[in-house]
Amino acid sequence: MPAIEITKESIEELVALIKAQDQEELLPVLEKLYPADIAELFDDLELDEAVYVASLLEPQKKVDVLTELEADVKLKFLDGYTNDQIANDFFAYLDSDDAADILNSMDTTQGKEILRTLEDKEHSKNISSLLKFADNEAGGLMAKELIKVKLHWTVKQCTDEIRLQAEEVSKVYTVYVVDDYDELVGWVSLKAILLAKEKMTVDEIYNDNIIYEYTYTSGEEVAATIQKYDLVALPIVDAFNRLVGRITFDDIIDFVKEEADKDYQMLSGISGRKDTSDTVISNTKARLPWLIIGLAGGIASSLVIGGFEEELTKNVQLALFMPLIMAMAGNVGVQSSSIMVQGLANNSITNSDVWGKLGKELAIAIINGLVCSGLLLGYGYISGNHLDIMMTVSLALLSVILMAAVIGTIVPLALDKLKIDPALATGPFITTSNDLLGLFLYFMIGNMFLA
Amino acid sequence: MPAIEITKESIEELVALIKAQDQEELLPVLEKLYPADIAELFDDLELDEAVYVASLLEPQKKVDVLTELEADVKLKFLDGYTNDQIANDFFAYLDSDDAADILNSMDTTQGKEILRTLEDKEHSKNISSLLKFADNEAGGLMAKELIKVKLHWTVKQCTDEIRLQAEEVSKVYTVYVVDDYDELVGWVSLKAILLAKEKMTVDEIYNDNIIYEYTYTSGEEVAATIQKYDLVALPIVDAFNRLVGRITFDDIIDFVKEEADKDYQMLSGISGRKDTSDTVISNTKARLPWLIIGLAGGIASSLVIGGFEEELTKNVQLALFMPLIMAMAGNVGVQSSSIMVQGLANNSITNSDVWGKLGKELAIAIINGLVCSGLLLGYGYISGNHLDIMMTVSLALLSVILMAAVIGTIVPLALDKLKIDPALATGPFITTSNDLLGLFLYFMIGNMFLA
Repeated sequence: MPAIEITKESIEELVALIKAQDQEELLPVLEKLYPADIAELFDDLELDEAVYVASLLEPQKKVDVLTELEADVKLKFLDGYTNDQIANDFFAYLDSDDAADILNSMDTTQGKEILRTLEDKEHSKNISSLLKFADNEAGGLMAKELIKVKLHWTVKQCTDEIRLQAEEVSKVYTVYVVDDYDELVGWVSLKAILLAKEKMTVDEIYNDNIIYEYTYTSGEEVAATIQKYDLVALPIVDAFNRLVGRITFDDIIDFVKEEADKDYQMLSGISGRKDTSDTVISNTKARLPWLIIGLAGGIASSLVIGGFEEELTKNVQLALFMPLIMAMAGNVGVQSSSIMVQGLANNSITNSDVWGKLGKELAIAIINGLVCSGLLLGYGYISGNHLDIMMTVSLALLSVILMAAVIGTIVPLALDKLKIDPALATGPFITTSNDLLGLFLYFMIGNMFLA
Repeated sequence: MPAIEITKESIEELVALIKAQDQEELLPVLEKLYPADIAELFDDLELDEAVYVASLLEPQKKVDVLTELEADVKLKFLDGYTNDQIANDFFAYLDSDDAADILNSMDTTQGKEILRTLEDKEHSKNISSLLKFADNEAGGLMAKELIKVKLHWTVKQCTDEIRLQAEEVSKVYTVYVVDDYDELVGWVSLKAILLAKEKMTVDEIYNDNIIYEYTYTSGEEVAATIQKYDLVALPIVDAFNRLVGRITFDDIIDFVKEEADKDYQMLSGISGRKDTSDTVISNTKARLPWLIIGLAGGIASSLVIGGFEEELTKNVQLALFMPLIMAMAGNVGVQSSSIMVQGLANNSITNSDVWGKLGKELAIAIINGLVCSGLLLGYGYISGNHLDIMMTVSLALLSVILMAAVIGTIVPLALDKLKIDPALATGPFITTSNDLLGLFLYFMIGNMFLA
């Protein structure tokens, strides 16, 4: 935690000081507060108050606060400024990737105007060069700001270059080494530069075994590479191996979290990424489609059951165990499908062992099925239910568990093969189709043994 | 990606070279391979082959491979060495946190023997000082290796200190500043040291606004701090503010991923963290308990329905819509509970706005409920079902959706208040209790309107 934290009490006090425009009291507090905390404070401020607070911050910190704001708050806050101010007070200090993100969510005319007004033409060109990449590829995640040195430079030249670029590249983790054609050939750590003699050349201290990705690499692969090799920053090259940007670990922590949130919500039947602070309407929109699919599934099951109305009238007791059969089919299906979805997301399932995975899921299902139907049979015996009914229900339970495991395993794998997000399978589709097939199987078996 | 990657083909070739002990061909490849890739290769090797490969690596790289192995593979691999070798070939080069992790999963007698045999007594003391902390608190996640300098030192002294400790601290991101009592007072970046004049003192270039945590801070809070402030490393202090360790971003990426996986599997009814490569038995153990809870719920619902057998015999059509009611109760309940669980995990729900969240979930449920029961009524009208049955089912559907939303919202909040992991709520508990209450409500309403 930082020296001053934002708590409920401190926010109230701060808001009061801001409303009173008490600059003398505010300045020392704002100086101690980290950008992420000031961004939190903005949630409780009106636009003119936020603009007042921003006016008390030094230029770079003002921009750091901006990048910490949620996407929608960011645009609202910038509404407090003219295009010229946005260009030269904000964009001038923003990293190219953060600037490109803002432009992507802005009106195109305003975006063009801002890029045109930006006085630093080099920076403006850098930002617009990022606009051509998609959000979820390396090119769309990278920043242009990085420090690169040439192979034949001396350590002294490196230090001078770092000094020169120090203002633009706020966090320096690794210095990249390129050849005369700007192709990435290696890296050197700040530690190595610090400890080397001034007259040594980069050639003598650099490491040529470098990990990199291409601009067209997917965000998932970038995240996997950064995680696997514990990288603090990953250099990105174009198709000609020329160094064009870098992606830092903090962007990837956010990316990993967002992906996990998305899969989690898919599993629970919510589309898109929602949280408790989103509006009722946007939350309803994310959930209603799944409920309507569930509703359609429910109507379909009423038709399946309706087809067996005669059997049901004869053996009303069959109705008692419908919920049990359905719930178990649902549970087993979700267990199998979610473990597949995670395996696919973590790249731990390769195409070659699809049959192995299916065999394993079946083995697990057989054990689980035998234990559960055994327990059910035992309950039937003790409770004095009709034995023929209980035998039928237990047999149906075993079959339904096997079926659910097979469907739960195959559907995500099939979706993945078809290049569709396998997480879709864990939504209401699996549960609904399992419900239908399970009920059908249940009544078929009931029909066979109790007719 | 690195220059040489591990693919299916390259693994086969490598394994052949290893079996033939072809040192001449192996050495240049091993030199290019990153530790994480060599660790992957170990999965396909016998113990003696892995030990042979390790013997070809330089000491630090051998240890880096060890830390990349999965926990169980790690112990199996170390079985190929004597305690003396483990101590002085491995532990001597391991970071204190990685060494402590291994000791925690080892037999205590062997662990003590290794610490006693370790020649570097200072390192041995550092490692054992970490053993007293729990896995999921900052003390159990931190490493003792870090670079600290004193406030009154010159930049030259700092560089000398970094040179001195450079071998032990493999990755230097930030240099910490302490006072004469070893209390943490600030930090200075490598960049600042590199760019400063040799005669300047730390006092002139350091930053006193530092973010830190205590040894007893929870892993979740540490992860939240690192994410919020985009830190590459977080210093950890003891109760007297003395600097005792640091936690780096890579440990936290793993921690975030593991936590997300755990919540995901809880939602799908799998306890513990499993993946597709775990054995059938351990997978069964993780799933069967939830299925048995589901089974018990199913039996309980058969009793609830049994209590309404008379109504059911009179209106067999009521049975047709049981699956629909149950499925919808389940879907709504899981939607509400999972959004609460995520909100609690992300710290975006505070105690004060419990009523606000409940109201919001209710509002969403009312809209969803009205739309779904309206659609159902429309379907009933078009399909020519008995109107009184369809009115009853639609009314029951609306009530059940409202009930499920309330339960799905309240249970996670209540568990959290009781200091129980709210993710438990998303497991079969919510679905099962929703099933039971939903059926009960359904038949009560049916009884009222159709009797």
